[in-house]
Amino acid sequence: MSSTLTPLSEIADVLRSAQRIAIAAHVRPDGDALGSVMGLALSLRAMGKEVYALLEDGVPTNLAFLPEVATVLTPPYADFEIDVAVALDTATHERVGEHTKAALARAPFLIDIDHHPTNPGYGQMNHVDGTEPAVGQIVYNLLQAGGFPITDAVMQHLFTAISTDTGSFQYSSTNARTHQIAAEMLTAGLDTARLAQLLYQTHPARRLLLLRAMLNEMDIRAEGRIASWQFTRALMDEVQVQPGDTEGLIDTLRMIDTVVTAVIFEEMPDGKIRVSARSKDQRLDVSAVCGQFGGGGHRMASGARMKGPIQVAAETFLTALEHEVRRLA
Amino acid sequence: MSSTLTPLSEIADVLRSAQRIAIAAHVRPDGDALGSVMGLALSLRAMGKEVYALLEDGVPTNLAFLPEVATVLTPPYADFEIDVAVALDTATHERVGEHTKAALARAPFLIDIDHHPTNPGYGQMNHVDGTEPAVGQIVYNLLQAGGFPITDAVMQHLFTAISTDTGSFQYSSTNARTHQIAAEMLTAGLDTARLAQLLYQTHPARRLLLLRAMLNEMDIRAEGRIASWQFTRALMDEVQVQPGDTEGLIDTLRMIDTVVTAVIFEEMPDGKIRVSARSKDQRLDVSAVCGQFGGGGHRMASGARMKGPIQVAAETFLTALEHEVRRLA
Repeated sequence: MSSTLTPLSEIADVLRSAQRIAIAAHVRPDGDALGSVMGLALSLRAMGKEVYALLEDGVPTNLAFLPEVATVLTPPYADFEIDVAVALDTATHERVGEHTKAALARAPFLIDIDHHPTNPGYGQMNHVDGTEPAVGQIVYNLLQAGGFPITDAVMQHLFTAISTDTGSFQYSSTNARTHQIAAEMLTAGLDTARLAQLLYQTHPARRLLLLRAMLNEMDIRAEGRIASWQFTRALMDEVQVQPGDTEGLIDTLRMIDTVVTAVIFEEMPDGKIRVSARSKDQRLDVSAVCGQFGGGGHRMASGARMKGPIQVAAETFLTALEHEVRRLA
Repeated sequence: MSSTLTPLSEIADVLRSAQRIAIAAHVRPDGDALGSVMGLALSLRAMGKEVYALLEDGVPTNLAFLPEVATVLTPPYADFEIDVAVALDTATHERVGEHTKAALARAPFLIDIDHHPTNPGYGQMNHVDGTEPAVGQIVYNLLQAGGFPITDAVMQHLFTAISTDTGSFQYSSTNARTHQIAAEMLTAGLDTARLAQLLYQTHPARRLLLLRAMLNEMDIRAEGRIASWQFTRALMDEVQVQPGDTEGLIDTLRMIDTVVTAVIFEEMPDGKIRVSARSKDQRLDVSAVCGQFGGGGHRMASGARMKGPIQVAAETFLTALEHEVRRLA
């Protein structure tokens, strides 16, 4: 393994000399995953390269409006050959998904570009920068470093990546460069307002039904400091949930002024319970609590998988969390 | 009246030579009104000037966290004397409020700075620029043009003004300069994430109770194209609503992808029903429907006052609205 902060110009050199490139991101892709993959893919295609965009779980319906997402490949993958593989926004190699990992392994050279600080650097070349708010921001810098084409479609994807991973420029990871990039994109003619409307101001009615269920069913404890919700398969079936419908729901729980930590428990098809935890207080490290259950992540945003049933998992996790919350004083 | 686009450097010259300055904005102040007034006031105070910040309706509770807002004056005003008056973000002179207008009239010179295109330019010096997304952005440019101090407290107010009036950089009025200013503020050390958290991610539990009630009670008709809600005094009393709690609720109704128009009916203390209507379709002019009931406004955002009871007003208005919606085909 080389350094985990290979200069972007060196990565650009490798991409420039390759002709067949596969680009992937993590399972259950979000805006940063899809946007980074397609932003890089469309720029490289504009240079005449053969580019395979691989997402184990495909394109979330809420992002299906983005340009050329119909070219994203999902398993089973055809027998294409590649010179270089790129994994974006994926903290561990396994997180690209089983089939996608196998497809990336067809290349003798893997580039790992990420902003998760826990990423060990599993590529032959790695650029892991935990200070970056979004991988989309790294990809934009990479395209500029290489002098690669930044078309309107590329900008749509990279703006989506940056905007969604910063909560529309609200999270603490947002830096001056984030706004500089947005300014450059506006100057280049990107219609950021249209993207914002499609990303944040347009939801299927399902989404409001989920929000309503959450507000009706949410559990508030520890003197209002913990807000949580159990998202059951029964509700998923009733509402006919699609990937992407739940994005940002946890932010609504977090909004309550007394809340210092918000948790959503989600029943997975395999019966496992997916835990998503957020902290609003620097002193409360939710990754430590998730770590008690084999999970991890960032201090302020973490996750874990627990055994069901969901009620038992929730009580177990919330008890551990409440213990930590009570230590805050 | 002079030109409506006096260069900011000339306005800065007038302010530099004045010693006693009153600054005001419109009644029912929002983030841009308060932030612009206090941003300019704190900069001028840092230059040693005697500055009176006047808001007819005072500081909204959701913005009370901002620095030095306790220095905002409300009527009845004391007998202070002023050399220059400034009206910010106020489309007509009357909109500063009756007492505030009288106080501003103590100065022989009024400066009118605004971004409402309908502002006629009612000052001795006017800078009305309808292309600016927020008056906070104009004030920031003014401070730079004059070389006036831009302290952290000044930035907190101007960032609040800019961020709230662009919906956190989402509205179509957002331009490259908006993001450049945010980048400059971050470079200067402003904690924009803290402000975003206080502005958007912190709500009293009351706010979620209102949202829950709305989602439980909302009326969807005309094949999902009309979403509406009756906000009753009974609920207001139950939740103990404060000014600012309801801001943006209508945006949640608007979010449903099938919806072309969203309406909130609100029972006022005098028994009248306040109607707020939004359109998402350029072809649907909600101001025309509001006009049928003595109201008006913009094509996409309008209002009216109707006689109660609320259920009758709602049915009457929705019937008229549905008639227009069905004409869209």
